[in-house]
Amino acid sequence: MNPHVDLKEFQQQHGEMITNQMVETVESLSMPSNLKKAMIYSLQAGGKRIRPILLLATIKAFNKDPLLGLNTASALEMIHTYSLIHDDLPAMDDDDLRRGKPTNHKMFGEAMAILAGDALLTYSFQMIAEDKGLTSDHKVRLIGLLAKCAGPEGMVGGQVADIEGENKKLTVKGLESIHEHKTGKLLTFSVLAGGIISDASEEQLELLKQFAYHIGLAFQIQDDILDIEGSEEIIGKPVGSDESKHKSTYPSLLTIGGAKEKLHFHLNEALSSLDQMTIDSSLLTEIAQLIVARNH
Amino acid sequence: MNPHVDLKEFQQQHGEMITNQMVETVESLSMPSNLKKAMIYSLQAGGKRIRPILLLATIKAFNKDPLLGLNTASALEMIHTYSLIHDDLPAMDDDDLRRGKPTNHKMFGEAMAILAGDALLTYSFQMIAEDKGLTSDHKVRLIGLLAKCAGPEGMVGGQVADIEGENKKLTVKGLESIHEHKTGKLLTFSVLAGGIISDASEEQLELLKQFAYHIGLAFQIQDDILDIEGSEEIIGKPVGSDESKHKSTYPSLLTIGGAKEKLHFHLNEALSSLDQMTIDSSLLTEIAQLIVARNH
Repeated sequence: MNPHVDLKEFQQQHGEMITNQMVETVESLSMPSNLKKAMIYSLQAGGKRIRPILLLATIKAFNKDPLLGLNTASALEMIHTYSLIHDDLPAMDDDDLRRGKPTNHKMFGEAMAILAGDALLTYSFQMIAEDKGLTSDHKVRLIGLLAKCAGPEGMVGGQVADIEGENKKLTVKGLESIHEHKTGKLLTFSVLAGGIISDASEEQLELLKQFAYHIGLAFQIQDDILDIEGSEEIIGKPVGSDESKHKSTYPSLLTIGGAKEKLHFHLNEALSSLDQMTIDSSLLTEIAQLIVARNH
Repeated sequence: MNPHVDLKEFQQQHGEMITNQMVETVESLSMPSNLKKAMIYSLQAGGKRIRPILLLATIKAFNKDPLLGLNTASALEMIHTYSLIHDDLPAMDDDDLRRGKPTNHKMFGEAMAILAGDALLTYSFQMIAEDKGLTSDHKVRLIGLLAKCAGPEGMVGGQVADIEGENKKLTVKGLESIHEHKTGKLLTFSVLAGGIISDASEEQLELLKQFAYHIGLAFQIQDDILDIEGSEEIIGKPVGSDESKHKSTYPSLLTIGGAKEKLHFHLNEALSSLDQMTIDSSLLTEIAQLIVARNH
């Protein structure tokens, strides 16, 4: 038997499972039908499901059943989805399109988009609290960490720092801090949640955290590079949008060559964190490499 | 020793404690300073703290230490505060004033108000998860119930139904369902959370739920009556604002006399639920009576 699991296969199989789990759960709730439609619209709007896949792949690396993390992964993706809905609002980024489709407020109006985001955020914690496969100790740890990574000390704080950093020339350190919070903390949760569910040791959790930190920054640097070198058709948004918004980026601060160097530095650090654990890290390695090689 | 506790005294003492607990906790977190300012601004904007007081008074009714519920009560008030910030937004009620002070988005801008609301909502779950005085089983139950009462099946669902009910002639049943969700569910959480923390029996929780249901509706009916009969100076918002917004209210559906009759029906039902338990319900009785007698 070949224990090797192909990332593409794993992603396809579990990505669909996560979408179904989210949609079926929301479908089953009793709420006004327009709210349900608005929530499900954004949950079905596609996306790479990178965070939940990372969570399930981490559980797999510890030789446990990835489905133990299905509800937590779905909750995490709901939080990611709510953050996109609120980010797209006229008062925020004012985007009409997301992944080539009308944004939530363009479809359902601003009031509904605000409330659909609030509903997804709130429900995500309920989803973990009601999970039947995890102990109360696991759930409390997961909920506390998810709130910390998504809230004022994490993603929301990063979002505020990002808005305040617009039209300012940032240092590389300042830029890193924004990304570490705005996008990095949810990636950290993805990996740590997988570790928590797998009863990883404190030492292993520390290494997983380092892995997440480095792939988070690599992810963002690649985003910045794609904004310059990518194909508009493939990435689904106008190339050069960072520059037109006067945002500090890695290429603008370090040149494109310097940004690519930094990208590979973080990839290597991420892989080295994995190497220090005796786990089956093949899927996690593939994910790290994919982040760097992706073209959208 | 006279074990009787005066509601006014209890409210004053614990209301201040809750404000301090919320503000000091947010102060201690690491986040962009403007986000912190926006969160604290609304947490300090006053209000009767009726929900957290109800939670602590319920614990007291079971002869337990009310402070066991201090973090849960603070989390609950944070959720109430976030809901006011988002409700006031231009895309929602578009209010410039709240309790006589500029609304959050008037002070900090719309983007920050959306994010400050998101941050308060997210952090509230972290606050319960990190509580050092409760068991994991208690915390999971509280978090699951709070999310259920605040999310799509509760307050957010009620908010959507309320918006959709504007400019429509509702039935009394339809109006009740909106209030039961929009304001009632958080009141239900207040009382049930106190019961959960006090290890109340299932039968007691059922009676507490009935008590909360009835004081919730009484609260809303009194709100509608005050909108017609109240003093603008005392209630802090223009009298007659429901009518000018073409909202269905109890007086508009039942006449003012019919609304007052219904108010007393729900008060009596609430008190009768309390009578069926052998607990020290003096504070809860006072709170129920205050809801009906209040002039703002």
